Amino acid sequence: MKSKLNIVKIGGNIINDEVALASFLKDFSELEGFKILVHGGGKRATEIASEMGLKPKMINGRRVTDEANLEVVTMVYAGLLNKNITAQLQQNNCNALGLSGVDANCILAHKRIVKEIDYGFAGDVDEVNTETINVFLQNNMTPIFCAITHDKKGQLLNTNADTIASEVAIAMSDLFNVQLNYVFELKGVLETIEDGNSVIKDINLNKYEQLIEQGVISEGMIPKLHNCFSALKKGVQKVKIGDASLVKNEANLFTTLSLK
Amino acid sequence: MKSKLNIVKIGGNIINDEVALASFLKDFSELEGFKILVHGGGKRATEIASEMGLKPKMINGRRVTDEANLEVVTMVYAGLLNKNITAQLQQNNCNALGLSGVDANCILAHKRIVKEIDYGFAGDVDEVNTETINVFLQNNMTPIFCAITHDKKGQLLNTNADTIASEVAIAMSDLFNVQLNYVFELKGVLETIEDGNSVIKDINLNKYEQLIEQGVISEGMIPKLHNCFSALKKGVQKVKIGDASLVKNEANLFTTLSLK
Repeated sequence: MKSKLNIVKIGGNIINDEVALASFLKDFSELEGFKILVHGGGKRATEIASEMGLKPKMINGRRVTDEANLEVVTMVYAGLLNKNITAQLQQNNCNALGLSGVDANCILAHKRIVKEIDYGFAGDVDEVNTETINVFLQNNMTPIFCAITHDKKGQLLNTNADTIASEVAIAMSDLFNVQLNYVFELKGVLETIEDGNSVIKDINLNKYEQLIEQGVISEGMIPKLHNCFSALKKGVQKVKIGDASLVKNEANLFTTLSLK
Repeated sequence: MKSKLNIVKIGGNIINDEVALASFLKDFSELEGFKILVHGGGKRATEIASEMGLKPKMINGRRVTDEANLEVVTMVYAGLLNKNITAQLQQNNCNALGLSGVDANCILAHKRIVKEIDYGFAGDVDEVNTETINVFLQNNMTPIFCAITHDKKGQLLNTNADTIASEVAIAMSDLFNVQLNYVFELKGVLETIEDGNSVIKDINLNKYEQLIEQGVISEGMIPKLHNCFSALKKGVQKVKIGDASLVKNEANLFTTLSLK
């Protein structure tokens, strides 16, 4: 029987809040068994880009990464955020290992092909190096991935952190019974956006399609849920979406996604 | 018999020069057997600090690291430089793993104790985690260390890269026959500073003390050589100092340091 592996993805809303981040990292440290953390960016990248005189450019909610902005996200995601998160986890006695996709060739990607929009140095994931990630896990290390990958031709690439989490989850399902946990600012997928407690506890593939048709799921949630169902179809055992309490044992309000 | 381990330290002079860096990384990739790279900073940290409105402060050739400057060096060393170097090595089929001392608790340090000068968040190395570094080496990974460490209390620390190289070399000597290679802008320790080819090929401890007395060794070289002899006294087999050709097999002009 495969061992359980928890993959947790956190986004900017926690990273931007020092107290919330410290509290989450304490809970994550206490999570038992094999685990991986994937973190997104947060506002510090935007602030630093602005201090350096750069203007961030967004299309469809995705950052368009020119060379100067790639430099900033590499510094902020792989340097500042990744190492500070790793240091805090080490303080909590979690043997965290901060990684980007380039390190030991963990996540191979290619520069997104230009169709209508040129996203610049945005990476789409091709391959996750499960063997190496398993070496880390089996040697009592907890990989902490930032959302920077590479193309093995020397080019770093800025990659969507939700996608990294789902691609790592899918690939690691060959070796583990994987649970993927998306932590974000809400308690789960909401029935009514105005009511933060109107969490839809269970969504299967049929219901997901119905909810989109009914317009219940907002535009911002669709790519996130798309990633989740894609992960489930490709072998991930369970996907949970909720706020930071998701990593605590006593969490009781969150959305569980399943195929059937 | 212990296997050989090459530890190479490069500084700002190579990092600042794109062509020289690419050439060095190609040679380093071709170096056979177990190896570790340690890299220093370079001018990009100073430039970025300046773009962000910060003024770097130096005392006795060491950067004084306040909180804002620690943020910059963490971004530039652990993010920008470390990931770009790692990506280039991956391109050369060297399975590089970019690391800071915080990652998997590889290098534990403490904030330098304030005597006459407060160096701010400068770290002095306490412990190198040889077991974990050996896991990386035995699994065909080449650790690439930047000069950021931590205190296991959540604090990142800016650490001298020469010191990191010698401390890692000393610690790894328990497991390997270690050769430590310092790559810098000169062909070696020079007899006459004006003559770049006046390399002193061999320096033992006696000669080192004579050279200091005679004023042949310049002030900037003394801490570097002090590190080297300290490493030799603590078990490192061989120390070489020279320019980037040091990692090539055909290198013939460099300084070899030994105790006797």
